[in-house]
Amino acid sequence: MVNFYNAIAEITGADEVALATARTHVDNLIKPYGSLGRLEDMAVKLSGITGQLYNQLDRCTTVVLAADNGVVVAGVAAVDPGFTRLQAINMTRGICGVSVLSAAVGAEILVVDIGINTPTGWPQVIDRNVRRGTANMAEGAAMSRKEAELAIQTGFDVACEAYGNADILGTGEMGIGNTSSSAAVVVALTGCDVAAAVGRGAGLTDAAWAHKVQVIEHAVELNHPDSQDPIGVLASVGGLDIAGLVGCYLAAAWLRKPIIIDGVISAAAALIAYRLAPASVDFMFASHASEEPAYQIIAKEMGLQPFLDLHMRLGEGSGCPLALQILRAACAMATNMGTFADINFDTSVLVDYRDDQ
Amino acid sequence: MVNFYNAIAEITGADEVALATARTHVDNLIKPYGSLGRLEDMAVKLSGITGQLYNQLDRCTTVVLAADNGVVVAGVAAVDPGFTRLQAINMTRGICGVSVLSAAVGAEILVVDIGINTPTGWPQVIDRNVRRGTANMAEGAAMSRKEAELAIQTGFDVACEAYGNADILGTGEMGIGNTSSSAAVVVALTGCDVAAAVGRGAGLTDAAWAHKVQVIEHAVELNHPDSQDPIGVLASVGGLDIAGLVGCYLAAAWLRKPIIIDGVISAAAALIAYRLAPASVDFMFASHASEEPAYQIIAKEMGLQPFLDLHMRLGEGSGCPLALQILRAACAMATNMGTFADINFDTSVLVDYRDDQ
Repeated sequence: MVNFYNAIAEITGADEVALATARTHVDNLIKPYGSLGRLEDMAVKLSGITGQLYNQLDRCTTVVLAADNGVVVAGVAAVDPGFTRLQAINMTRGICGVSVLSAAVGAEILVVDIGINTPTGWPQVIDRNVRRGTANMAEGAAMSRKEAELAIQTGFDVACEAYGNADILGTGEMGIGNTSSSAAVVVALTGCDVAAAVGRGAGLTDAAWAHKVQVIEHAVELNHPDSQDPIGVLASVGGLDIAGLVGCYLAAAWLRKPIIIDGVISAAAALIAYRLAPASVDFMFASHASEEPAYQIIAKEMGLQPFLDLHMRLGEGSGCPLALQILRAACAMATNMGTFADINFDTSVLVDYRDDQ
Repeated sequence: MVNFYNAIAEITGADEVALATARTHVDNLIKPYGSLGRLEDMAVKLSGITGQLYNQLDRCTTVVLAADNGVVVAGVAAVDPGFTRLQAINMTRGICGVSVLSAAVGAEILVVDIGINTPTGWPQVIDRNVRRGTANMAEGAAMSRKEAELAIQTGFDVACEAYGNADILGTGEMGIGNTSSSAAVVVALTGCDVAAAVGRGAGLTDAAWAHKVQVIEHAVELNHPDSQDPIGVLASVGGLDIAGLVGCYLAAAWLRKPIIIDGVISAAAALIAYRLAPASVDFMFASHASEEPAYQIIAKEMGLQPFLDLHMRLGEGSGCPLALQILRAACAMATNMGTFADINFDTSVLVDYRDDQ
């Protein structure tokens, strides 16, 4: 296995020649210039990733990293943390959102215990446990730097293996309390106000929201992570699931394969990968627009353009199989549409053709 | 065949009992309340349409109505109107946007000549020609009321036949000049300013845009259609493609089947169907958010909620197969996800569970 630090040193951005070739091809397809909008941009981006003009995304795996968060003892999530383990198992039983939506599009699902409090005892959940949940970030570092590195490496290795049987990966997570850890990561990396990063969710009362904000503020103050040290941020206020996802994004960029971001938690991990290796963003696709304010902060910094407006906030990776279907359509467009040359169309009238129809 | 006026009298709205049953079912699936957002709303709406809790959308047909518009002689579109016929043929050859995107999701495509200027001479384009293009609305009515009614009936009949082999229809059109006729329809129905309804497109110069606005303003003034008479509006400033699409939406509502709206032209037709039979909106799904300002005006009146943000403006029905994939995911969610009862989850903690994760 390759060490992720070595991989970071080897990551380079999109293939500029392939990007230009793909853009020219897409512009010559039978349609007004630019009229398939972001579908065109997706096809071009995929070419920049793979170096190929025509791409297929037949094989997809949604990788779900499950881990517990010590901060739940501070009362930021009242569901028993045992629910992390229960849902990890349920995901492999095909009854959770991410499992059903993945199956509906022919995507595999790979559920990994990277930090659940107690062993699942369930063989379909892959046991790559780094530690039994993080410590409470409101009382000290969530984990050691070494553990954060090990979790990143674990995610990196898992993704490299998954790409052996996949053209693209979706990224998911399961971990009670991980909206708190991801908000803390975004605050620590960007310096934004905690209140600006924490959403109210559907049923969060003013009091519950204020408490959550206070806990995160306290955790960031106590650990005072250095915003220029993304792995330090991860160790002090992050989670094992987030760390593993960082490894997945780095693996995608290193292998030059596409990867899909889900909601705010996977986006927080994507931001860390981006800070470690800025070119890694060239391999990432946003999916749906999360309503969590932290997501917007991340999307702005990274230039992510979510294209599904579904008001979803489940997490689990549930947005990835939906986005996959649109990315597949972009591949079909680039591969199967005719060109103006095919139909002997005089493109000299194109300026006008672009105006109407 | 049923006369569409008789069908209008028989159209009733969504099945309220099925809606309530579906909402309860969706609320009991293993996920925080409401966390799959509009995917949940889609599943519930489908139940209200079919009366069934579980739905399948395996069989889809994209119906494309092709027709020419006499207004092109006024210089609102500089591409030769012969392009309408050429593209109708190309669609059946599988090389246009709507054909490729439909094929990519396993949807059939049905291309109908409802008003092309000259016969296609191409058997795969279904010949249901009502008249050889409309007259120039800038000089008089685009067509007679009888022709408008015949075109609606034609679309109604085509859709009824198509539903014999389809669970859901997508709606598309091909007609050089039809952004002008659809803008005129929206202006005539809503009383909005022409300048507020006509987009600049990608390459429309200020002068070309001003000319288009002027032509449409003149056409509406000259014909002074009655906003309370949707078929009169259609006859005076509409198009044969738009009229046929009105028939498709009415057929969907009458048969209690789902139907997908594409961009601004199919949305203008949907607005006419809605004005003729308000309950028909219960059977329509929006797809992508068109950038044409007229689309926003229609969406606001009808309460349409497009969920794909792809900056598309091709028309042809190209947004429908993309939306279909998300609707299919909604069906899979409702059919295949487990319930809290399945996993013996104590829902009394749900208030808190809804707050986090």
